[in-house]
Amino acid sequence: MTTEFLVQQIHKKQSFLCIGLDTDLEKIPTFLLGGEDPIFAFNKAIIDATHHLCVAYKPNIAFYEAYGIKGWQALEKTIKYLNTYHPDIFTIADAKRGDIGNTSTRYAKAFFEDLSFDSITIAPYMGKDSVEPFLAFEDKHTILLALTSNEGAYDYQTQKIEGQELYKKVLKTSQTYVNAEQLMYVVGATKATYLTEIRELVPNSFLLVPGVGAQGGSLEEVCKYGMNQQVGLLINSSRGIIYASNGGDFAEAAAKNAKKIQVEMQKELSKLE
Amino acid sequence: MTTEFLVQQIHKKQSFLCIGLDTDLEKIPTFLLGGEDPIFAFNKAIIDATHHLCVAYKPNIAFYEAYGIKGWQALEKTIKYLNTYHPDIFTIADAKRGDIGNTSTRYAKAFFEDLSFDSITIAPYMGKDSVEPFLAFEDKHTILLALTSNEGAYDYQTQKIEGQELYKKVLKTSQTYVNAEQLMYVVGATKATYLTEIRELVPNSFLLVPGVGAQGGSLEEVCKYGMNQQVGLLINSSRGIIYASNGGDFAEAAAKNAKKIQVEMQKELSKLE
Repeated sequence: MTTEFLVQQIHKKQSFLCIGLDTDLEKIPTFLLGGEDPIFAFNKAIIDATHHLCVAYKPNIAFYEAYGIKGWQALEKTIKYLNTYHPDIFTIADAKRGDIGNTSTRYAKAFFEDLSFDSITIAPYMGKDSVEPFLAFEDKHTILLALTSNEGAYDYQTQKIEGQELYKKVLKTSQTYVNAEQLMYVVGATKATYLTEIRELVPNSFLLVPGVGAQGGSLEEVCKYGMNQQVGLLINSSRGIIYASNGGDFAEAAAKNAKKIQVEMQKELSKLE
Repeated sequence: MTTEFLVQQIHKKQSFLCIGLDTDLEKIPTFLLGGEDPIFAFNKAIIDATHHLCVAYKPNIAFYEAYGIKGWQALEKTIKYLNTYHPDIFTIADAKRGDIGNTSTRYAKAFFEDLSFDSITIAPYMGKDSVEPFLAFEDKHTILLALTSNEGAYDYQTQKIEGQELYKKVLKTSQTYVNAEQLMYVVGATKATYLTEIRELVPNSFLLVPGVGAQGGSLEEVCKYGMNQQVGLLINSSRGIIYASNGGDFAEAAAKNAKKIQVEMQKELSKLE
């Protein structure tokens, strides 16, 4: 999917919401557990109820790998369902991979070709030649970890290298990579005030922002400091939406919570014009 | 597996060789491709021919994910085969994962519980709370990327934070984590002279060293600077062993190349006493 198409979808749906599919058999409604593929059944119900309120879904790959082959089957079915019935949705494999060149190419093939995701999250620790193999895929996006929303972000990411924080160095040097226009960045919402400086370094890139809501970030703050003229933001919510209820009304409850966020987003988008 | 048991195995086999199972359908002998599971068939033949010459196997998870469900099935069969018939072998999931706490726990469950690997490689970018969930598993080892063997290692890893290279900060701070004695580190052999300083920071930890041979590192140099009283080294070779031949003699050829390295290792081990 091109960035232009994603921006069109955001304006059309008046939403830049990404829904995280962190599907956990211990948290989904128990009545689903008797079925053949409860993970996919849950995802399908969530997608059916919320796809008009969001522009992206982000399966967290760890949750699928934790169930072995059954998990992979559910992941395959989920992405196929999205690509078949909702080709206007931007799909993110939240995989946080990153390895030497030929190995990164394998991961890129797995997620971009076999599973047909539009994008994947990548850790930058191994540098340029671990990221560029992902950027080699046309119309696909590589979402690099810059500043994450967890406590450990302060261990290395905010430490200064030659007067500049590591995450800023990641932002800056990655902009020189081949096909850098296909890069997006993960920036945790718990640090909204950092966004002014981040926008100076990557004015045009999309930012994938986790941590609004549950982890304490404010949507208004993130938009104030992080939005650009092409919107440039995908705000992720996982548990706050998909586990809104674990009763028979779980999909409706998810839609209700997604709708609340979409309404707030509409307000923020109106400030752009 | 405990570190003590691993050290015993090294002395018993006179080898600290780890064989990387980067199994690629485009590189394995073509006569295997007609079978039901060529990836497992190849791995099994390699294991049968080399298990007495090495102490560890390291499947590179990207190569399995690239084949989707079939790849996962081959990975499951391979690890099951190792755990059933060669319980004295140390197994490494070369996965380079790392995510926020509850997601890291999922990855840990996937690789330590479901697949029963002894260890996993982890990227340190997200800090302490992305690594400790792996360390919480008893008798399992977490192998943290410190200094990798690729060009991109110079992008961030060797950059200085407050006068100290990032990879040294990773070594130093990770030693304060809960269950730090279960940590090992990836250190590329292409930088053997770095090992003196690395040994000052982590005198007791095992180092997993890729890049000997194909990537240009010398075994003698690595041992000179990197060995400690408990050996403390696992030297990985992948392509140089498993793709020694792609004819009918591929397993024998692999054993022949593994034997060459084992003989060199025996010489290095004799220097310890």
